[in-house]
Amino acid sequence: MAPASGRVLKAGVLGATGAVGQRFIVLLAQNPTFSIHALGASERSAGKPYAAAAKWKMSEPIPEAARSMAVTVCDPAHFGGCDVVFSGLDASVAGDIERAFFSADFAVFSNAKNFRMEPNVPLCVPVVNTDHYALVAGQRAAMGLTRGFIVTNANCSTSGLVVPLKALQDRFGPLRRIVVTTMQAISGAGYPGVPSLDIIDNVVPLISGEEPKMEAEVLKILGGLSADASACAPLADLRVSATCNRVPVIDGHTECVSVEFAAATPPSIAEIKQCLREYTCEAQRLGCHSAPAHAICVAEEEDRPQPRLDRGAGNGMSVTVGRIRECPVFHVKFTLLVHNTVLGAAGSSILNAEYAAKKGYL
Amino acid sequence: MAPASGRVLKAGVLGATGAVGQRFIVLLAQNPTFSIHALGASERSAGKPYAAAAKWKMSEPIPEAARSMAVTVCDPAHFGGCDVVFSGLDASVAGDIERAFFSADFAVFSNAKNFRMEPNVPLCVPVVNTDHYALVAGQRAAMGLTRGFIVTNANCSTSGLVVPLKALQDRFGPLRRIVVTTMQAISGAGYPGVPSLDIIDNVVPLISGEEPKMEAEVLKILGGLSADASACAPLADLRVSATCNRVPVIDGHTECVSVEFAAATPPSIAEIKQCLREYTCEAQRLGCHSAPAHAICVAEEEDRPQPRLDRGAGNGMSVTVGRIRECPVFHVKFTLLVHNTVLGAAGSSILNAEYAAKKGYL
Amino acid sequence: MAPASGRVLKAGVLGATGAVGQRFIVLLAQNPTFSIHALGASERSAGKPYAAAAKWKMSEPIPEAARSMAVTVCDPAHFGGCDVVFSGLDASVAGDIERAFFSADFAVFSNAKNFRMEPNVPLCVPVVNTDHYALVAGQRAAMGLTRGFIVTNANCSTSGLVVPLKALQDRFGPLRRIVVTTMQAISGAGYPGVPSLDIIDNVVPLISGEEPKMEAEVLKILGGLSADASACAPLADLRVSATCNRVPVIDGHTECVSVEFAAATPPSIAEIKQCLREYTCEAQRLGCHSAPAHAICVAEEEDRPQPRLDRGAGNGMSVTVGRIRECPVFHVKFTLLVHNTVLGAAGSSILNAEYAAKKGYL
Amino acid sequence: MAPASGRVLKAGVLGATGAVGQRFIVLLAQNPTFSIHALGASERSAGKPYAAAAKWKMSEPIPEAARSMAVTVCDPAHFGGCDVVFSGLDASVAGDIERAFFSADFAVFSNAKNFRMEPNVPLCVPVVNTDHYALVAGQRAAMGLTRGFIVTNANCSTSGLVVPLKALQDRFGPLRRIVVTTMQAISGAGYPGVPSLDIIDNVVPLISGEEPKMEAEVLKILGGLSADASACAPLADLRVSATCNRVPVIDGHTECVSVEFAAATPPSIAEIKQCLREYTCEAQRLGCHSAPAHAICVAEEEDRPQPRLDRGAGNGMSVTVGRIRECPVFHVKFTLLVHNTVLGAAGSSILNAEYAAKKGYL
Repeated sequence: MAPASGRVLKAGVLGATGAVGQRFIVLLAQNPTFSIHALGASERSAGKPYAAAAKWKMSEPIPEAARSMAVTVCDPAHFGGCDVVFSGLDASVAGDIERAFFSADFAVFSNAKNFRMEPNVPLCVPVVNTDHYALVAGQRAAMGLTRGFIVTNANCSTSGLVVPLKALQDRFGPLRRIVVTTMQAISGAGYPGVPSLDIIDNVVPLISGEEPKMEAEVLKILGGLSADASACAPLADLRVSATCNRVPVIDGHTECVSVEFAAATPPSIAEIKQCLREYTCEAQRLGCHSAPAHAICVAEEEDRPQPRLDRGAGNGMSVTVGRIRECPVFHVKFTLLVHNTVLGAAGSSILNAEYAAKKGYL
Repeated sequence: MAPASGRVLKAGVLGATGAVGQRFIVLLAQNPTFSIHALGASERSAGKPYAAAAKWKMSEPIPEAARSMAVTVCDPAHFGGCDVVFSGLDASVAGDIERAFFSADFAVFSNAKNFRMEPNVPLCVPVVNTDHYALVAGQRAAMGLTRGFIVTNANCSTSGLVVPLKALQDRFGPLRRIVVTTMQAISGAGYPGVPSLDIIDNVVPLISGEEPKMEAEVLKILGGLSADASACAPLADLRVSATCNRVPVIDGHTECVSVEFAAATPPSIAEIKQCLREYTCEAQRLGCHSAPAHAICVAEEEDRPQPRLDRGAGNGMSVTVGRIRECPVFHVKFTLLVHNTVLGAAGSSILNAEYAAKKGYL
Repeated sequence: MAPASGRVLKAGVLGATGAVGQRFIVLLAQNPTFSIHALGASERSAGKPYAAAAKWKMSEPIPEAARSMAVTVCDPAHFGGCDVVFSGLDASVAGDIERAFFSADFAVFSNAKNFRMEPNVPLCVPVVNTDHYALVAGQRAAMGLTRGFIVTNANCSTSGLVVPLKALQDRFGPLRRIVVTTMQAISGAGYPGVPSLDIIDNVVPLISGEEPKMEAEVLKILGGLSADASACAPLADLRVSATCNRVPVIDGHTECVSVEFAAATPPSIAEIKQCLREYTCEAQRLGCHSAPAHAICVAEEEDRPQPRLDRGAGNGMSVTVGRIRECPVFHVKFTLLVHNTVLGAAGSSILNAEYAAKKGYL
Repeated sequence: MAPASGRVLKAGVLGATGAVGQRFIVLLAQNPTFSIHALGASERSAGKPYAAAAKWKMSEPIPEAARSMAVTVCDPAHFGGCDVVFSGLDASVAGDIERAFFSADFAVFSNAKNFRMEPNVPLCVPVVNTDHYALVAGQRAAMGLTRGFIVTNANCSTSGLVVPLKALQDRFGPLRRIVVTTMQAISGAGYPGVPSLDIIDNVVPLISGEEPKMEAEVLKILGGLSADASACAPLADLRVSATCNRVPVIDGHTECVSVEFAAATPPSIAEIKQCLREYTCEAQRLGCHSAPAHAICVAEEEDRPQPRLDRGAGNGMSVTVGRIRECPVFHVKFTLLVHNTVLGAAGSSILNAEYAAKKGYL
């Protein structure tokens, strides 16, 4: 399926050789909306063919479309002709480089954290809050841009959590308190990432910086916009407590969630299940290529979701929710699974761009 | 260190060939208070030398003291001369067999769940609530026993959780709400237990029956006794929500805990750390052999406790607590680690028996 | 691609609920040559819809084509209309059941070991020795069958090993000695299969019965037929020593192989690489749907093949060979990887059946 | 047990903060022959207390004897008073530093590879070839040293392999050909070492530089000395082919070995088993503290040795050998297990030093 215009869009990838960058390459190579047009990485990789520059760690082979393409440094001068630029850059360099690209009037879709909390930057999980694209106009105005803008996607754990929360909030009104404990896959730490001595026969009970990120991002994503759509208006009355752990799993973050509703009379478990099953989003209704058939899959078996079995649901773009039951302390608890490098990273960026194409932002 | 009497006590082990039974054998062989005197297992094992009957799965070699001892069926007739009987039996058979033993006037220390919730049976984590031994007199009276009784230890996850909770409750008064998420080791499921296809590169988000067990046992262990010491008086005002997961770890359960105090003014994080560091129990003060130097080890590193590195603390009898910090939803959250087959199973039974010896119950 | 006749063939699956059976279902549901027509399992599953009978352990979801199909017992009476019957049965029952099916004039493609070493039964790795189909005529004559016959595929480890060996033998003449050490995936043991306590942080140096199987099957597969094509003529002059280990890998057997040629002047490493790269088989030339583009993928990177990265090569139907180098003891050594449940099991059966269809055996 | 002299020897450790260094610290803290006297590491660690400088990854806690000792740079000036210096240095720096120490008249016991193949340096697995200490006199003479010398221990995989080979060679005469395939633990790569993305659900079929090291070291260790004991005389007629793999195991290298004897009539399997069971070494006979009761443990169970269950044999100083059976290609094949950081690294160095003390070299 091509974009609204019928034209295949030319895509550049920043940080193309890293772990997130490799996932971008795999997904874009299968995506009819985009063609890979430019690959940016560090000085060290510049000039090499992609296959030589990337230490490939995906279980899929390197796509032919990228294999012999020459890698460049991440300078807008090398990305001429790109309709869209995806960033899988590390946070340590993403700030300056991404700014250079959107300032040069590129449409930037970033997985990095650097601009996520800026009030006029959409922090957009594409199956949740595409309404935050309304910020783009103000962003362009503020920076004097014609075509350029930046849209970020959320942290991998946040990306999974907000999907069922959004469904519940839309149907049953505001949430009051959330306690969430994650068991996160090693691919979330990139490569070389987690040393094997730290994680075989082990759990690491800390992921540096992850908990405050989750606690803040949820409020922005589930929140609204200011009246003039110039800034986000994060939720003020929701309290979130996150505990993040690393476990010996390749891909797929598992999250155990307890939820308290603000309403005096909370919904029943049956109503909650129905709500989650029925949830749909705008990206699905618009027919975006990467939008999953079901944004939420409700697991029927009592011992699911499991990362190895469920991370592929909806090609990694669905969130699987199971073990939906009463919580003795709050109202409901459940366990969810999100593919951390698809919906939790590159997949969100790509669906964000597909949405932007459908809505005429590109 | 020998028991108060100076005499080495003769110990029988029920379910000696199973996973918990093997841990009993390893621990008893190193324990100066007890000598292994009788080994009971199923009909299938009866008559065989222990080394042939047990499919040995411990990383320690089979102790010489047990290697060639003949296994019998679990009939009191074969356990004459035993001062104490430890039960690592599976719940499917533990009820009848344990009843036969205490009815035959044996002192039974059981790891099985069958009698745990009986009002006049101590559910005793030996570093937490040895005061519940006061139930023994009533138990004997009710059943017309002279020397016999049964003391149970708690579920493996419960055993870890109650240690810091007891410390906090003793110092800062009643707790109101607890949300706990566990990441439990595979050894907790025995052998063959968890199929490898279910757990490599995976998490299983359900341990059947575990959550209600934890939620109920905590209330009994942290509760008191009736005025006449004839029955337990579980806490009525504490609400506990437990979510239990299986992760690819050999030994050591990790638990992420959020705690709300009942007090209007909760303690500071510094006060909580100090309280946990200073906690001691009666079994330590009595000098019981298996009592750890520190019932609670407070981890100094921010990424601890970790099962592979901390499960051996106090020879598996200490609980390690780390990541003690404010909880945005409740008052404090932390992560704890308990060795599930030592303090969480056989080790608790053995320390319970050491305590009983010191206090003259044997 | 449909079969030669253009007709989609109706397929029955025996042992459909087991580990190999589940792989059959996944592969058949994606295969244009076959439609799933009947599902056989044990008495316990009979009458249930497939989704309820199978404890599903594939990372792909249960195919819709099978989900609600009723499971029957493995009796030919329930398989009327099937053009082909695939057997994923356990060896403990495969003998009688498979005999019942081919005696009832069904074309049976079996993954079980029971008939593999019968002189008039093809033991066929479909990218290696489809010439052994010449045995089918004699088989039918011997048993008075019109359409029925049985073709078996090889043990999972054998299936990988024979592919490069066949290439080398065809090009450079007879082999004299082979020493092979395997590191085999847990999925090869089915479900529940290997207990997790046996394999996490561990290697099991024995797979019961596997080594003699490998050592014998290689000789039959690489051998020829008697002059009248009534029986196999296994190689008499090749000696094979196999050592088989289980390692904590989900899918994909790795095998380290040292080879001695019979020729006085062995080929160079460069010639061997070229030989492996150029190898093709009849199933490819006939355009069978499941035949891989490359029967052998020669890995370019020095640290490949690796199970997690290479098991998907050719949709699991290619063997990846790497580390091709001189052997200080024999002539050449290399490491190969085979997907043990695809080319090593269900995939071979299916390609065998595709071949049979192309050649008019069905 | 104290050294012959009755005096506790003061030990320095070079590379004390690394993976091998940490194992040295754990072992020395339990060793009555030595006391930890000086700790050397890189400039970055110098001046810090050991507990702050080392990123501790052992499952045993940091020994009190080392915890607050100040780390220095690896300069002989800081190691005054040391009777012996152990080196766990990385090969990239070991050459210069070790030379500085033995040139300054220190007795150096090194785990690094840099001097292993020097003709006048003992490459000594202490349960195998302590007779190579005869080289020390010549070494001192050549360099004009009084007390100083260097003794190296072997690569971890070599250390395990040579133990049964030595037993067989001593009893049955020369060996002709060896094919060995290893499955090596991740701890062999140090910390951070192997990235978890490379090894969970995976095998890495290459350990850079390991195979040539094994193939060469075996010849030196099993060889003799020149007539004047001035140089080693490696075996000239033995051919060794090694294939080295990394597997997801924490500690313990498993090796599958096929052996051909030079003798026309090879020993029987029973004779081989008896030979391995009866093997003893000089370090045992001298009563060295770290010498295991059994240099070789012959496993009785058919599915042993296994790393998780057997790596602790003899406190990590025994080699466990199992699956001893006829080889269809050579004479005998078997599987062995060696604890790669104990006998395979720090433990060998320490036993080498104990031996040196007993024999008056210190």
